[in-house]
Amino acid sequence: MADRSRRAVLLGGAAAAGVGAVAAVGMDAFAAGRASDARAAAEAAAVSGNGPRTIPFHGEHQAGIEMVPQAHQSLVSLSLKPDTDRDTIRRLLITLTDDAARLTRGTYALADSEPELALVPARLTVTFGFGRGLVDRVAPGAAPAWLSDLPAFPIDRLHQWWNGGDLVLQIAADDPLTVAHAQRMLLKDSRTATTVKWVQTGFRRAYGSERPTRTTRNLLGQVDGTVNTIPGTDDFAGVVWRGATENPAWLAGGTGFVVRRIEMLLDKWDRLDRTGREQSVGRRMDSGAPLTGRRETDEPDFAATSPSGFPVIAEFAHIRRARTDDPRQRVFRRAYNYDLAPEVGQTSNSGMVFTSYQHDVTAQFLPIQRRLAEVDLLNEWTVPIGSAVFAIPPGCAEGGHIGETLFT
Amino acid sequence: MADRSRRAVLLGGAAAAGVGAVAAVGMDAFAAGRASDARAAAEAAAVSGNGPRTIPFHGEHQAGIEMVPQAHQSLVSLSLKPDTDRDTIRRLLITLTDDAARLTRGTYALADSEPELALVPARLTVTFGFGRGLVDRVAPGAAPAWLSDLPAFPIDRLHQWWNGGDLVLQIAADDPLTVAHAQRMLLKDSRTATTVKWVQTGFRRAYGSERPTRTTRNLLGQVDGTVNTIPGTDDFAGVVWRGATENPAWLAGGTGFVVRRIEMLLDKWDRLDRTGREQSVGRRMDSGAPLTGRRETDEPDFAATSPSGFPVIAEFAHIRRARTDDPRQRVFRRAYNYDLAPEVGQTSNSGMVFTSYQHDVTAQFLPIQRRLAEVDLLNEWTVPIGSAVFAIPPGCAEGGHIGETLFT
Ligand code: HEM
Ligand code: HEM
Repeated sequence: MADRSRRAVLLGGAAAAGVGAVAAVGMDAFAAGRASDARAAAEAAAVSGNGPRTIPFHGEHQAGIEMVPQAHQSLVSLSLKPDTDRDTIRRLLITLTDDAARLTRGTYALADSEPELALVPARLTVTFGFGRGLVDRVAPGAAPAWLSDLPAFPIDRLHQWWNGGDLVLQIAADDPLTVAHAQRMLLKDSRTATTVKWVQTGFRRAYGSERPTRTTRNLLGQVDGTVNTIPGTDDFAGVVWRGATENPAWLAGGTGFVVRRIEMLLDKWDRLDRTGREQSVGRRMDSGAPLTGRRETDEPDFAATSPSGFPVIAEFAHIRRARTDDPRQRVFRRAYNYDLAPEVGQTSNSGMVFTSYQHDVTAQFLPIQRRLAEVDLLNEWTVPIGSAVFAIPPGCAEGGHIGETLFT
Repeated sequence: MADRSRRAVLLGGAAAAGVGAVAAVGMDAFAAGRASDARAAAEAAAVSGNGPRTIPFHGEHQAGIEMVPQAHQSLVSLSLKPDTDRDTIRRLLITLTDDAARLTRGTYALADSEPELALVPARLTVTFGFGRGLVDRVAPGAAPAWLSDLPAFPIDRLHQWWNGGDLVLQIAADDPLTVAHAQRMLLKDSRTATTVKWVQTGFRRAYGSERPTRTTRNLLGQVDGTVNTIPGTDDFAGVVWRGATENPAWLAGGTGFVVRRIEMLLDKWDRLDRTGREQSVGRRMDSGAPLTGRRETDEPDFAATSPSGFPVIAEFAHIRRARTDDPRQRVFRRAYNYDLAPEVGQTSNSGMVFTSYQHDVTAQFLPIQRRLAEVDLLNEWTVPIGSAVFAIPPGCAEGGHIGETLFT
């Protein structure tokens, strides 16, 4: 119910959310002398559409998944310190839940030393995921079977960074300074109990650059995200959210989260012409339409053949390999680009932070990834260099904390 | 003249620029089959304010300086290969000028392998700066006296990265994907003649987060950029642009460019209370007002003393040390935040890419930096880790190329 209305807000217009944010700032101004900031926030709301927008934190599901993705994201993977016990983990989650609830509504965190940086929520969401290590420490035996490292795939070239972790924070907003500030506050409150394992930042088109529902392009130039389950639909709920009868029960309303860091070999990609590029995926570079169609949304015709008898969409094209008739094998994909300083002698250090959400990683994600690892034309230009799996617990109500069902 | 009108466009409304961008896309659609993209761009223009905005590339001065800064910036410093001679440098500049002129008006570059990524200019600018090495190779003796490494300052802890370079590209836009694409195209066309020395990316508040003219905050939480010369004014021209009678003549209409990479010790900053923070700069954390005033724009009263006789703005506060009565010692500052993955055991790896523009680095920047290096309370929490100086040549007209005056 609460969740339905959140969905309505976040998928519909933003005006109501904006007003909410300003009100929150006004009610909760962090000191008498800060009234001027509340005024400034109200003024900002009047002149811009982006800054004051908020996504409700509380609800049946955690925020940050069933929505149009924000422009900026930071994934922070933490390792529990050896002596961090069950009680400490619980206190940590209570604190981080409070921080997240405040920051996402545009209010400073309790121990916030730069409170003014918190006044621009810009659709900030903080989503928590638990690694196997955390679940085992809190409630041995409670982990779903799929909560462990993915099997090794022949295409993998995993670096020593970028893998695993006990607790992941997915911090995303339409403003990079908002993400940086939230990350810092959350890390400060994590440091007695955890150390940072890795941080992966990424970006998509900025707020206002394009229609928000337009499928964005990745750094290979491809329209990426066309065939995907749609937030706000029953189909989405079926693909992503864990049902009440699934085991373990503490994850009901949660989901499974896969992170794959995939390098793009852009220098090699450069040497491939447009036809080769289109063959590798089975879609056109300009419109994203399948090679058998005209519009992005056209259904690919996998049976179509060219006059010379070859399939129009190649046997090993990415979209043919990624698809199956088995309706269970579907995931919700959400990818962010990364673009770091090139190494010596290179012109790029770029790729994609591929993430997917599915209620059962083994049944849904794994068969797709196995097929792609076996053969996929695109593998020539993409190399998985990091891999991690987390269980995303359900959302919580006001007064509760993320992960509470694991402690009962 | 051309420059005046550019100024009007970029500092005034964006509507006209938006229409221009769409027209450019339409006229220059990169192939018959790309008409759908032109349509898509026109559609995007109708629904968003950010993506289609363009900043004219040609003019008396290079673009990318006299304007409200974009949200994202990448500074790319290149080293000339040992065998890159004067002619090769000229060809390089001709090619890069053409790329920049096209990309900044929302058109693909000539050798663009991901042309669709070029269709969202989002106020993209590309600004070229020459290091001593380039000028000496093209025209020995033509470098202004200040074009060399800054003297070593006692506060410096320069890393082996982040220093110097022969050619710098300042690539900035309100969309991170636009910056990434432009950077890649420019680097591809640079690789036969140069190698990458360093890349420094940075961000400010996103488009739409705040009023664009509002002074933004840095990662210390400070209002940063209050006292600065204002783009579009005669004062700005006097501080920044080199005059027709200055020597060397090839730099007339250009400026001097200083890059300082400054780490922020956020963990240490955390242990400082709000009063201490305000003392270190001499301004309030909430409003940015001087400690002797109420509003951000109030003039600081450096003579004011507390009842116990101490100066209200401390002797060693940053703004007292940075300021002088000498009207020549002024620069145009433009700072970007960086926030990288924390090192093991740290909670931050953050700071500022400080840049300043001034027609004479020795006369304007150096005395300020010397005073700050000598004593400045803020030095406790900030550490310069990179340093570079470049000469920014004037702009060029259509048909010309950046740097042409150096070759005559
Ligand atoms: C850098 C790596 C990757 C790139 C560049 C990439 C790119 C693409 C592109 C361009 C499409 C077609 C447009 C669309 O429907 O979104 C696509 C579709 C798809 N990809 Fe990927 N992909 C990558 C990795 C993966 C991975 C790791 C998986 C899952 C294991 C995956 C699963 C899918 C699925 C399920 C589809 C939809 C197929 C269908 O039409 O039913 N992709 N991808
Ligand atoms: C991380 C390093 C730095 C930080 C955090 C910082 C921060 C600030 C802040 C908060 C102000 C007051 C508000 C304003 O007028 O913008 C300021 C003013 C100023 N800063 Fe810095 N600054 C830094 C480095 C530098 C450097 C390297 C220079 C030049 C060498 C510089 C020159 C100035 C000047 C000229 C002013 C204006 C002073 C006046 O009121 O006349 N700053 N800075």
